[in-house]
Amino acid sequence: MELVFLGTGAGMPSKSRNVSSVALQLLEERGTTWLFDCGEGTQHQILHTTVRPGKIEKIFITHCHGDHLFGLPGLLSSRTFLGGDEPVTIYGPKGVKEFVETSFQVSHTYVKYPISFIVVEEGIIFEDEKFKVECIELEHGIQSFGYRIIEKDLPGELLVEELKKIGIKPGPIYKYLKEGRKITLEDGRIIDGNNFLGQSKAGRKIAIAGDTRMTNKSNLLAEGMDVLVHEGTFSKDEARHAYDYFHSTSTQVANVAQSEQIKLLILTHISARYQGEDTEMLLQQAKEIFSNTQIAKDYDRIPIPRY
Amino acid sequence: MELVFLGTGAGMPSKSRNVSSVALQLLEERGTTWLFDCGEGTQHQILHTTVRPGKIEKIFITHCHGDHLFGLPGLLSSRTFLGGDEPVTIYGPKGVKEFVETSFQVSHTYVKYPISFIVVEEGIIFEDEKFKVECIELEHGIQSFGYRIIEKDLPGELLVEELKKIGIKPGPIYKYLKEGRKITLEDGRIIDGNNFLGQSKAGRKIAIAGDTRMTNKSNLLAEGMDVLVHEGTFSKDEARHAYDYFHSTSTQVANVAQSEQIKLLILTHISARYQGEDTEMLLQQAKEIFSNTQIAKDYDRIPIPRY
Repeated sequence: MELVFLGTGAGMPSKSRNVSSVALQLLEERGTTWLFDCGEGTQHQILHTTVRPGKIEKIFITHCHGDHLFGLPGLLSSRTFLGGDEPVTIYGPKGVKEFVETSFQVSHTYVKYPISFIVVEEGIIFEDEKFKVECIELEHGIQSFGYRIIEKDLPGELLVEELKKIGIKPGPIYKYLKEGRKITLEDGRIIDGNNFLGQSKAGRKIAIAGDTRMTNKSNLLAEGMDVLVHEGTFSKDEARHAYDYFHSTSTQVANVAQSEQIKLLILTHISARYQGEDTEMLLQQAKEIFSNTQIAKDYDRIPIPRY
Repeated sequence: MELVFLGTGAGMPSKSRNVSSVALQLLEERGTTWLFDCGEGTQHQILHTTVRPGKIEKIFITHCHGDHLFGLPGLLSSRTFLGGDEPVTIYGPKGVKEFVETSFQVSHTYVKYPISFIVVEEGIIFEDEKFKVECIELEHGIQSFGYRIIEKDLPGELLVEELKKIGIKPGPIYKYLKEGRKITLEDGRIIDGNNFLGQSKAGRKIAIAGDTRMTNKSNLLAEGMDVLVHEGTFSKDEARHAYDYFHSTSTQVANVAQSEQIKLLILTHISARYQGEDTEMLLQQAKEIFSNTQIAKDYDRIPIPRY
């Protein structure tokens, strides 16, 4: 599981930062990639990474501003030429479907795979055996969401050697025990699978925020997470400006990371006014509050460990 | 007057060629730039050139395939943040307006300058004192156009020394003579302005084609032009494939350049299958037929002389 930052700038592309997109590669976990936002040029950025458009299974749009959305029709269109046959599900606010459908209709684009659109609201928007995704609404002038990606805990491995010691040989019974069930043996003994399981592995938990001014919704988004990817468009000296334009400062976000006791904070959506030393200043301001902070750069690959 | 190639690839972006766009810089002639097509990432490419989005006065879309259109909402949106206050007129097939308007509506984009949309058809689509633009419909499965940009001839300069020799001193009369009018002097002499004008300067004539399979429409597009910018997606060995997919080969286009006796042929929209030596092969095949052929690369700047 790793994050690949495809665009880490704000509003407009610059020479050093493209507009917003970040891929969550889940290759070991489910053989697919999830994409969060798709600003113009996302398919171009992908060319310089290990992300394969055909592997993209889900796309989550945080909000409909162009710098988070305008790359979507091109990426979907190219995906069909790059061997993408599997279905794609696109989650986001109302409008995403209309934008993609109009783009396809006007440009006579036909893709070979099915696309589903899901209009999100607060709550659980996806759940299967391995993952759950929750949605929190933020505050950005237009509807903007943050996504909480929760990998479910992996159960402990079956302690095969322990079972063999008490005379239980490999067979279909192992499957039941691995599921933590109780089994009565032919000799009358009752075996509880839970007593023969190793330690479970904690799932990883990542929150990815859309653009937002700072409110306690960012705390709700970060609560219980390992990693928080959050916009830090401005420095702490621009708090008033950030508020007026519905954005956050790096120190506001660091305070959230600190109070929610997450493990790693990754700031992104950095205003083009911060270059070189100024970006370092933004980072230092945040690190004074929450030391394990990074500022994402385009093409950064950040593996997510089990904490 | 110079052409700046922003995207010279076909269908999808590659590491070396972006999707289609070419700027015609008319800075000396009218202080503005005209853009032809606007594939995704055009605003990104512009960052590496002298093109200023605020100077873009007209945008001509050849056809609505995504690789020629999907960069338009982002470019128009960024233009307003880059000091673009002057109006923009967008020419193209039906659909362009709907695409831009839906993109703006869904993304809550508001630009500070007026945008006019003109649905083109064959014939003259723009004319003022200095320029005329004509439109020819090509053959591409969906409606696709080529544009003929015709700079009007500049009248010769007034031969002031000759007038002084015959005793006609500078004054309001010079204005009339410069317009080629006849004037009766107080002494009864009749002076014909046309006899006191230097040689007129021929205007430059450039044709820019949209995607097309080869038909005689490409000849009509090139007729009387100095420069032809035309897709040459495939090599001559792929003529059948080119026909099936409504594209042209480099040699088909070279034949047009040869028979229409233009001055310079610039091939663009090159399939990603041609890299390095293969691109050179494409060029050589064309040059055997029409020697003054170039294959455009991204960021090429090609000044257009008066021939």
